[in-house]
Amino acid sequence: MTSDLSMYNIRTDLALEAKEIATEGQQSATIPGVWSETENAEGITVTRMEIQTEQGAQQIGRMIGHYVTLEVPELRQGDTTLQDKVATSFAKEFEAFLKRLGINTTSSVLIVGLGNWNVTPDALGPIVVENILVTRHYFELMPDQVSPGYRQVSAVAPGVLGTTGIESSDIVQGIVATSKPDLIIAIDALAAKSLERVNTTIQIADTGINPGSGIGNKRKGLTKEILGVPVIGIGVPTVVYASTIVNNTMDLVFEHMKKHTNNTDPLFGVFGKMDETERLQLVKEVLNPLGHDLLVTPKEIDKFMEDIANVIASGLNAALHEAVDTDNVAAYTH
Amino acid sequence: MTSDLSMYNIRTDLALEAKEIATEGQQSATIPGVWSETENAEGITVTRMEIQTEQGAQQIGRMIGHYVTLEVPELRQGDTTLQDKVATSFAKEFEAFLKRLGINTTSSVLIVGLGNWNVTPDALGPIVVENILVTRHYFELMPDQVSPGYRQVSAVAPGVLGTTGIESSDIVQGIVATSKPDLIIAIDALAAKSLERVNTTIQIADTGINPGSGIGNKRKGLTKEILGVPVIGIGVPTVVYASTIVNNTMDLVFEHMKKHTNNTDPLFGVFGKMDETERLQLVKEVLNPLGHDLLVTPKEIDKFMEDIANVIASGLNAALHEAVDTDNVAAYTH
Amino acid sequence: MTSDLSMYNIRTDLALEAKEIATEGQQSATIPGVWSETENAEGITVTRMEIQTEQGAQQIGRMIGHYVTLEVPELRQGDTTLQDKVATSFAKEFEAFLKRLGINTTSSVLIVGLGNWNVTPDALGPIVVENILVTRHYFELMPDQVSPGYRQVSAVAPGVLGTTGIESSDIVQGIVATSKPDLIIAIDALAAKSLERVNTTIQIADTGINPGSGIGNKRKGLTKEILGVPVIGIGVPTVVYASTIVNNTMDLVFEHMKKHTNNTDPLFGVFGKMDETERLQLVKEVLNPLGHDLLVTPKEIDKFMEDIANVIASGLNAALHEAVDTDNVAAYTH
Amino acid sequence: MTSDLSMYNIRTDLALEAKEIATEGQQSATIPGVWSETENAEGITVTRMEIQTEQGAQQIGRMIGHYVTLEVPELRQGDTTLQDKVATSFAKEFEAFLKRLGINTTSSVLIVGLGNWNVTPDALGPIVVENILVTRHYFELMPDQVSPGYRQVSAVAPGVLGTTGIESSDIVQGIVATSKPDLIIAIDALAAKSLERVNTTIQIADTGINPGSGIGNKRKGLTKEILGVPVIGIGVPTVVYASTIVNNTMDLVFEHMKKHTNNTDPLFGVFGKMDETERLQLVKEVLNPLGHDLLVTPKEIDKFMEDIANVIASGLNAALHEAVDTDNVAAYTH
Repeated sequence: MTSDLSMYNIRTDLALEAKEIATEGQQSATIPGVWSETENAEGITVTRMEIQTEQGAQQIGRMIGHYVTLEVPELRQGDTTLQDKVATSFAKEFEAFLKRLGINTTSSVLIVGLGNWNVTPDALGPIVVENILVTRHYFELMPDQVSPGYRQVSAVAPGVLGTTGIESSDIVQGIVATSKPDLIIAIDALAAKSLERVNTTIQIADTGINPGSGIGNKRKGLTKEILGVPVIGIGVPTVVYASTIVNNTMDLVFEHMKKHTNNTDPLFGVFGKMDETERLQLVKEVLNPLGHDLLVTPKEIDKFMEDIANVIASGLNAALHEAVDTDNVAAYTH
Repeated sequence: MTSDLSMYNIRTDLALEAKEIATEGQQSATIPGVWSETENAEGITVTRMEIQTEQGAQQIGRMIGHYVTLEVPELRQGDTTLQDKVATSFAKEFEAFLKRLGINTTSSVLIVGLGNWNVTPDALGPIVVENILVTRHYFELMPDQVSPGYRQVSAVAPGVLGTTGIESSDIVQGIVATSKPDLIIAIDALAAKSLERVNTTIQIADTGINPGSGIGNKRKGLTKEILGVPVIGIGVPTVVYASTIVNNTMDLVFEHMKKHTNNTDPLFGVFGKMDETERLQLVKEVLNPLGHDLLVTPKEIDKFMEDIANVIASGLNAALHEAVDTDNVAAYTH
Repeated sequence: MTSDLSMYNIRTDLALEAKEIATEGQQSATIPGVWSETENAEGITVTRMEIQTEQGAQQIGRMIGHYVTLEVPELRQGDTTLQDKVATSFAKEFEAFLKRLGINTTSSVLIVGLGNWNVTPDALGPIVVENILVTRHYFELMPDQVSPGYRQVSAVAPGVLGTTGIESSDIVQGIVATSKPDLIIAIDALAAKSLERVNTTIQIADTGINPGSGIGNKRKGLTKEILGVPVIGIGVPTVVYASTIVNNTMDLVFEHMKKHTNNTDPLFGVFGKMDETERLQLVKEVLNPLGHDLLVTPKEIDKFMEDIANVIASGLNAALHEAVDTDNVAAYTH
Repeated sequence: MTSDLSMYNIRTDLALEAKEIATEGQQSATIPGVWSETENAEGITVTRMEIQTEQGAQQIGRMIGHYVTLEVPELRQGDTTLQDKVATSFAKEFEAFLKRLGINTTSSVLIVGLGNWNVTPDALGPIVVENILVTRHYFELMPDQVSPGYRQVSAVAPGVLGTTGIESSDIVQGIVATSKPDLIIAIDALAAKSLERVNTTIQIADTGINPGSGIGNKRKGLTKEILGVPVIGIGVPTVVYASTIVNNTMDLVFEHMKKHTNNTDPLFGVFGKMDETERLQLVKEVLNPLGHDLLVTPKEIDKFMEDIANVIASGLNAALHEAVDTDNVAAYTH
């Protein structure tokens, strides 16, 4: 079974999870053409990954590029001190992307908040956009009076195909043509492979937003190829398929039992020996015809969305404007 | 294993599901002291159940009383024609409750919308209250001018313990003491045993709202014993535990496989032969320590809540006021 | 004093009020090059106006074109029957615009909801857009399966300069370039000359949206010249300047007193004899330095906005799609 | 004309304005039985007033008691530094009220947010309640584990007569009976005499909330007499009658002209010599029959409400809990 197909089956938008799947959960396993390092501090795990070759890309099912993932298991606890730390850490990682892409302090940036205002777990993009420190109009209307330490930032929430009738990608293409930014930052809600990732993980990638990713199943992506300028994608898993919850949980059950017994065969039979993809396939075969394979989200999603959107907006405001201090990133958001 | 314990483990607030569990899924099985009938029309399944004896109550783990459940699998499709039908059907069933309780056309009613405005799947009560045709103040301020065909209706959303610091039950008790209604109707969001029930099922019960039920884990209930007047409870499942999704799905997988093979033992081993409660226990043992046993809700919960709250408010407006026609129930809601 | 200047001073976005000012309130007065007729039925006053010549345009301070105004003084009463009548009447008038512009049943339409989601009286455009029956994506994705009686409709809410950093006009220009509609319908909240107009008046004009009009003081307009396709503008006054409330009220006071006395000179002195523009100038001279000349809106604006936005969305849905009946226009809105 | 009648005519809920009217605008004038002092610092004017005798109460048309008013003309500018200063200043003034009423650090407090969620300028109470640090349930459920420096605080938003069918006062009476607080703090939106007061002024009074005050024209008040425990009322003007805008503006016009000419008689005739009450009467006579005497609010009311509600919630959290520092009052609000 090719990793491409497994990709499709597992339905994750996170490169980190894609790599885990490709190495069958062996986190320490290396894949030729894929470099990665992991750092752990104060409840935040930062994984920096670079897919360097076509072979690596093939294996993981992701495009060549840089991927950074922040994992913060406690992020759903509503702890504002931790949130500030994550915003600062996010800003620092994000600045490395700007540097690598040659984005200097005078380059202009368009922030695109993908998703649907009226569907809470899909509203990440629009909520972030609401909290962005927008400055482009000051540069246009009174360039002499803009304080040093700010760059041109604009921000739009283009809506979703179902409510606008137009592909988000086409709307953004039009706005790029008239407003001519040097860089696009696109923010989107994602589907994850496991419930514990929901609203605790942030991914940054210089490959943009790819077709078919995200909650809304875009047919076109937001990439440098399409838009003509570099695109940094920021994603947060906010939903999980019921089938992947089942599959993921069964994995945990099997692992749990292995600690207690040498031979789990009598316990789980053939089912316990299936590989992840086969098992998921079986679960989906059962749930799909019943229309039960819903995308679900935690009950407390309203509060979770607000918190993580503030973290991202704070982090972006600090990373984009030198005059906005990473010590004080939260002050500019709602 | 007693049904009481299984009740606790399965975590359902629906009497219908409690009965299913007690009969181990054999829907046609009868339980002494429990009467029930089921009717099917136009996509709506109505099950009327009466727990008549202490023995029946014990067996099912519910109080003696009447329970009506409307199951409408297609209710999440956003079909306004179906929604109107459900509102009419709901109003008809509800009127039978009024009759049985001896509530006549001049009896006054207080509608209590339990739950939390700011947590979408817990906002059922507050949203229903917003769409109720409130009339009590007209009777108080200008009794001569109220048209015939209306009764005194008031409506409050008392908030939840976490945001008010006061038990909802205590707040309602105070309001009952000063406003003196003849009947209380309490609306609450529930947890269900399976994802397909979420926002497709409505339960009416003359046993009120019981301690520990609903999403917010109330410590006190809203019952005739506590409030001194009859209480009709209306509940809609809006969330499911991750563990019950897993368990429910595994059941479906086992059933599915049984159709294809005579002996599923080699397929699922011991696991496949566990009873539902044991299996759920195992799943919870694995998920709980990881903090993974979240209550989840479908991605589209915002729209689903609005739709079903409108159905209930329309139905109540029609059932409570003779002047409001069941043919036109939707006109009075938002 | 030229009418242009007075235009600026009186600060109205309604052509009807501009004409009233030009004729100094004499509604029956004719202006060369300006044709108009008024019709009254069921609480709705429809005024159709055509500015036919440059001279007429100069006099009124508006561009050559067609203007239709619906005045419905009772529209703020929340009467849903009246709202349905207004939606139907609006649809009928709107269809005449489509006809005159040669827009046939297969022409595609982009609806642009100008204004700011987060400022209630400026949210007209975004709320209308939310309630539009959008179809363009069906034509793109499955053209064979679209039922007859529908046209391609798309809808966007581009945000405002202060929150996006980009002129709405520039954003729309970009979207027009990529989505290529045959007609644009732009909806905007306006400032009116008197409080009784607020949320009771709807203006349709084939001159589009002009620079400096609307609440947000756009620097660029949405017109055929700029966008390359015809633009129909729909506007509703939702705010009034404090100074114009004062001025308008003083007018009413003077008129009121004239009914009771032959000579109002001793009553109001020089002030009573000033013309409207001079008086307004005086009021503004006093209020402006104090920062008191705020734009204000009625206390009940949340409800008023929702009602009139539904009227416009219903009317547009009926006017644009043959399959949507004007008898049933409300069914497609939220 | 007695001051009582003028009270009614001028329609202000602020004691400060009532005193101004009683002294015909002479701020330095003293009224027997009314003590007051004014302090000015950092853009905040604090006026402390005590109505000490029945005679003073008669003259001003307010009950005997303490009134503190914070006037902050720049509060609508969205300056968070100023907002923090106002919260701190408010907390300090509020603590003096607690002291005077003998409320010690263990006394329990119920905060009542009057008004209507769905009418932006009337939503002050509900928004403040949302941002209150509620603790009563911790004292009830785990009294041993509450950290020192906190008191028992509960908070409810009882809704308005039009949406509940029950007088707010009756609902609160019931909640007081079951939850037994030592002090009630009631927050309400008010009508002011001038537009510049809207969302820039905060009044604290130990006389509670009086019948007929506030936006919703309550028929019953929230006072110690009715509820049995002391009530501190907090009010913010959020709306103004159109007629009072006109009257207030004409005053400013007259004053302005007096600076430029010795004799304003020819300028304004009899109208200019009317006293404030007569003139307002005339304006209202003209506007009322037309239904034009609306309550209005600034266009930017959504943002203004959020800002001032945060100031009050922050101030209350700091004043009520010793462990919440006035230097850091904002951290506990949304």
